[in-house]
Amino acid sequence: MTSVSSKTAVLTVHRTLAWETREVAAPGPREVRVRVGRIGVCGSDVHYYTHGRIGRFVVEGPLVLGHEVSGVVDAVGAGVTRVRPGDRVALEPGYPCRRCAYCKSGAYNLCPEMTFMATPPVDGALSEYVLWPDDFVFPVPDSVSDDAAALLEPLAVGVWAARKGEVRPGYSVAVLGAGPIGCTTIMAARAAGATTIIAVDLEDFRLELARRVGATHTFNARSGDALAFIRELGAAQGGLPLSHGGVDVAFETAGSLPTTRLSMSAPKPGGVAVLVGLPPDPEVSLDIVGAASREVTLRGVFRYANCYPAAIGLVASGAVNLDALVTQRYAFGQTPEAFEFADREKRASMKVMIDVG
Amino acid sequence: MTSVSSKTAVLTVHRTLAWETREVAAPGPREVRVRVGRIGVCGSDVHYYTHGRIGRFVVEGPLVLGHEVSGVVDAVGAGVTRVRPGDRVALEPGYPCRRCAYCKSGAYNLCPEMTFMATPPVDGALSEYVLWPDDFVFPVPDSVSDDAAALLEPLAVGVWAARKGEVRPGYSVAVLGAGPIGCTTIMAARAAGATTIIAVDLEDFRLELARRVGATHTFNARSGDALAFIRELGAAQGGLPLSHGGVDVAFETAGSLPTTRLSMSAPKPGGVAVLVGLPPDPEVSLDIVGAASREVTLRGVFRYANCYPAAIGLVASGAVNLDALVTQRYAFGQTPEAFEFADREKRASMKVMIDVG
Amino acid sequence: MTSVSSKTAVLTVHRTLAWETREVAAPGPREVRVRVGRIGVCGSDVHYYTHGRIGRFVVEGPLVLGHEVSGVVDAVGAGVTRVRPGDRVALEPGYPCRRCAYCKSGAYNLCPEMTFMATPPVDGALSEYVLWPDDFVFPVPDSVSDDAAALLEPLAVGVWAARKGEVRPGYSVAVLGAGPIGCTTIMAARAAGATTIIAVDLEDFRLELARRVGATHTFNARSGDALAFIRELGAAQGGLPLSHGGVDVAFETAGSLPTTRLSMSAPKPGGVAVLVGLPPDPEVSLDIVGAASREVTLRGVFRYANCYPAAIGLVASGAVNLDALVTQRYAFGQTPEAFEFADREKRASMKVMIDVG
Amino acid sequence: MTSVSSKTAVLTVHRTLAWETREVAAPGPREVRVRVGRIGVCGSDVHYYTHGRIGRFVVEGPLVLGHEVSGVVDAVGAGVTRVRPGDRVALEPGYPCRRCAYCKSGAYNLCPEMTFMATPPVDGALSEYVLWPDDFVFPVPDSVSDDAAALLEPLAVGVWAARKGEVRPGYSVAVLGAGPIGCTTIMAARAAGATTIIAVDLEDFRLELARRVGATHTFNARSGDALAFIRELGAAQGGLPLSHGGVDVAFETAGSLPTTRLSMSAPKPGGVAVLVGLPPDPEVSLDIVGAASREVTLRGVFRYANCYPAAIGLVASGAVNLDALVTQRYAFGQTPEAFEFADREKRASMKVMIDVG
Repeated sequence: MTSVSSKTAVLTVHRTLAWETREVAAPGPREVRVRVGRIGVCGSDVHYYTHGRIGRFVVEGPLVLGHEVSGVVDAVGAGVTRVRPGDRVALEPGYPCRRCAYCKSGAYNLCPEMTFMATPPVDGALSEYVLWPDDFVFPVPDSVSDDAAALLEPLAVGVWAARKGEVRPGYSVAVLGAGPIGCTTIMAARAAGATTIIAVDLEDFRLELARRVGATHTFNARSGDALAFIRELGAAQGGLPLSHGGVDVAFETAGSLPTTRLSMSAPKPGGVAVLVGLPPDPEVSLDIVGAASREVTLRGVFRYANCYPAAIGLVASGAVNLDALVTQRYAFGQTPEAFEFADREKRASMKVMIDVG
Repeated sequence: MTSVSSKTAVLTVHRTLAWETREVAAPGPREVRVRVGRIGVCGSDVHYYTHGRIGRFVVEGPLVLGHEVSGVVDAVGAGVTRVRPGDRVALEPGYPCRRCAYCKSGAYNLCPEMTFMATPPVDGALSEYVLWPDDFVFPVPDSVSDDAAALLEPLAVGVWAARKGEVRPGYSVAVLGAGPIGCTTIMAARAAGATTIIAVDLEDFRLELARRVGATHTFNARSGDALAFIRELGAAQGGLPLSHGGVDVAFETAGSLPTTRLSMSAPKPGGVAVLVGLPPDPEVSLDIVGAASREVTLRGVFRYANCYPAAIGLVASGAVNLDALVTQRYAFGQTPEAFEFADREKRASMKVMIDVG
Repeated sequence: MTSVSSKTAVLTVHRTLAWETREVAAPGPREVRVRVGRIGVCGSDVHYYTHGRIGRFVVEGPLVLGHEVSGVVDAVGAGVTRVRPGDRVALEPGYPCRRCAYCKSGAYNLCPEMTFMATPPVDGALSEYVLWPDDFVFPVPDSVSDDAAALLEPLAVGVWAARKGEVRPGYSVAVLGAGPIGCTTIMAARAAGATTIIAVDLEDFRLELARRVGATHTFNARSGDALAFIRELGAAQGGLPLSHGGVDVAFETAGSLPTTRLSMSAPKPGGVAVLVGLPPDPEVSLDIVGAASREVTLRGVFRYANCYPAAIGLVASGAVNLDALVTQRYAFGQTPEAFEFADREKRASMKVMIDVG
Repeated sequence: MTSVSSKTAVLTVHRTLAWETREVAAPGPREVRVRVGRIGVCGSDVHYYTHGRIGRFVVEGPLVLGHEVSGVVDAVGAGVTRVRPGDRVALEPGYPCRRCAYCKSGAYNLCPEMTFMATPPVDGALSEYVLWPDDFVFPVPDSVSDDAAALLEPLAVGVWAARKGEVRPGYSVAVLGAGPIGCTTIMAARAAGATTIIAVDLEDFRLELARRVGATHTFNARSGDALAFIRELGAAQGGLPLSHGGVDVAFETAGSLPTTRLSMSAPKPGGVAVLVGLPPDPEVSLDIVGAASREVTLRGVFRYANCYPAAIGLVASGAVNLDALVTQRYAFGQTPEAFEFADREKRASMKVMIDVG
């Protein structure tokens, strides 16, 4: 086997994606070379494009973006048995050291030596070909579309969030923020058995989509007091006083201060708040006393672990419809336009998909 | 308030249901009097009717059968705030002492002083009126039919089984036996996110119904080797060798020796077998070595605790369709015929419903 | 049976404990009348005495303080079988409604109708006799002293905290604040298998006692950077980079802002912070982003549920030595002096015990 | 670096240990070469020696026994940072593929490609030098003796068993069989907070040792009905009727049919039976109905995962005293005598230790 040339979109300087041709080597042992098919544009990709950093991760050299990836296996290295050339696959975009205490105990998302696509200085997949270790390459059945295979990545976040929230049949949940991650969280919560799913956002466009993918109630936070709405509904459903109203689990996915605060007050006593997004400022003023004295548990989410198989199962079985999230589509050559659009039209779009292959 | 006369079907001697008129008192503090609407006939009811005992529970005097109960609140005692006269309700048919270590810790199904309907010597609900403590009376919304409200009881068993199996999104499960409890287990497993659901039975009639309520695969055990089928499917889905094939969770719901044995070999290493049914003989020969050395966990199920709210949520939200289980319907006056039919036509019926009110 | 006269210390107005003689009735069904033996003085008792309120709980009428209670059974009502007159007992000082969704599922500490001693308007036990429901009266074996029986209450808090932290063998923990609750948390964490236990406080007196009851390391926060100490120790023990240093579980027991902040940064990625104390201000500025992006879980503690049996077992087996906590002792008649001392000499005392009987 | 000569004891044919000199290569990347210090003789070693097989594992060629291993690091390969030459270490004797679904999720003990010492055809460590991957080499502090470092292996089994049993403070447990694994299970259960620990065996010698390492009660099964003893004790402690007596967790460690049966009837309703040993026959007749209808959970144990760090912490902190288990000691040259003794004198010995280095 030999290397292949791979047309690649590279973030060279602020807000500039340049085209380069890179050589992608023949796959080594337990490696897979994938002909990239679809790349979903994530908010974090756009943020690196526009701001050059996210928290402690700073773009200091040319960086390839894109970590929501599907494609077709092009070649496999020695020892690879999971997939064969021609297989349609999704890539889980981060792989860990496999040897530390975190990896050994199943929490590989916390591995100190994680290699995660499109997180500086690790390149992402906005390229014709990528090499990836076989244990993070997943074959997908025909019932999973190319778009959906790429969107398994944000679905994995939702699955992880639902797992952290320990959602189970009959639960009530509130999902604060109805962007792509909010929607995949709704999907995952519903798949886990939530029967009351309240989506809260500022945009009706998003709330409509949220309802289509599983929300049972929507609430535009411009229209009133979301907390009162959630508490009253919970109290009524549970046959409990208003002091004990609220949801079993609240998911913060918007990354704003008001939703972070709401996530801590929306759960009923003994409930859970899952912080999927993060407020922009490191230090925020919170009613920790109120949350703690209600025995509300706060759980953070950092990426995910062991969620791809479940995500594939949910899409393949029809429990979840990821295709509904794609609102715009661009050819690979239009990648710069795709990023500009995604930055400009946040409120009118859900998921921008780039057709690489 | 005064007492009311209540026409009641009483199991007086073997295979004989006699009609009596009993007085049902005005409800005391925290009690609710319910005008019974529908009663589902359970296999245990039929077994008491035909055999006069189930294990250590022996019918030694007249006994009223029936513990799958819905109805309308007729009157409430002092301190009742959960429901009002006229409310449509389902009754959870057992209530515990509320004070022992089991009750205090949420495992009230194991309370040594449980009072459970239609389990000797406690009377069931095949009567026009019943009195019941308010904390085990659940109002149901309009989206839950009268039949479904009665069938929340077997659904609660399924919900409990799925909870014991810790089913979560993306899981594969096998449900051994596709009678009413098998079907409610399928429903609950699907609601909890199982994406591969293999129903195994000897009757195609039941397997067809199983598929309608959520099974993704069905296997008639007369047609071949169910274990091989389950292991091969699991190995293929997991990308694992055949030695590590199997399902995440197997549910035994048929109460036969072959299915009990199968339940222990069907889970993949690290999986779970949930014994919902029980084999007829107390001592059975099992491959405990095989199960233990694969770290398969075996969990027993004895009734359920805290499952009614979830069951109601699942039905009300449309996640589960209990009405699909009703295959025959009898008027209250035809109760004896209903029992004879249920005994005779096990293979051709799923759930027999008696319309009391 | 008849009522008995009971000399009682009553908080009548701010900082004033007056003596009254009250009648304590004969025990009703499932009730126990206890001749009070020892009462431990809790920080919350002192706070009501000095400030007249704790958060939303306000002293608005005469209130009897004291909720760390041991004694001897004086008389029992109908249906009581757990204890007999003459039995040495400890009282769990709160009892719930036993019927709501919280009670049924084992989370009775969150019951909206909790009756908790010495929390306005419910009277505590600084009296010769008290009546209490039998299911919250626990017989104690001879190996548990009268003092220890009273101190099962703060130990129950520690047991609950350790349970919330899911401490297990080999864990490292930090206990922030080494007052009575800090010390019982140390005891409980050690009993649960923690092998590294770092106590942090501002008083050497407390740290010495902390070491005596199980701390393996102590750190006076006046002497340097507690977070650096904890992170370095954790990184060294785990063979991990400093970014992944920290403890498995941090317990905040001091109720101060600095320790609340420290509790969130001290756990390693994936660790847990248990908030046992609460900062004085409802709104506090916290690095929630740092905690969430490390997947640190924050859990609040509100009282406890189902902890007395475990606490009794730990003391009876010698795993925990509660007697070590008693630093001062007062006769019942000196109760006002005991409260003044407890308020004045917080730094020089650990637990003040009142000998009522 | 170069290879070293390593005197090695090899099981060549039935009951024959022959001496060979083997070359042990220089360590490759992420490998460690260890100068072996102590080897504990395990029952499985003796069984291969006397029977040539254990279940599906059959000795078909020369095999080196020994998998309870401590020593000193002799040399390290590229990329090794956890240990340096001269470090005292313990070896976790099995390493997995690190890439399959089991490994990724923390259940590496179930990895289909496990390489486990002294399990045919993988060689063990009865040799002067062994090579081992660095992530399964653990440095031990001075407070852990050489013997104890070797015996971390059986302690890891006990820790895993206690973890499977979810033992927590205040629990009552029964440990059936008081051999080395029974004793390490007692140690681990005590470390996890069990306050009632009933050891059952047929040999007073073992029961005395069991008491020394943490059992609070011992029962010689030749002297009466162990089940009655366990149930009565549990009922008395729990204030429950005899039907609800029993322990929270029963551990089967003897691998006999009577203890397997006992393990299933000894837990109280809702309790757990952990099968650490396995009965000699694959099919055994069990009262599964009784266990399931009491909601007793049966959990199998196959080796362990992620237990070495906890085991090291327990020994280093003094919570566990592994040295107490060593009853005989042999020089490396006497290895054949050690095996003969271990086979012959099972009843009079606990742990035979071989001093290799």
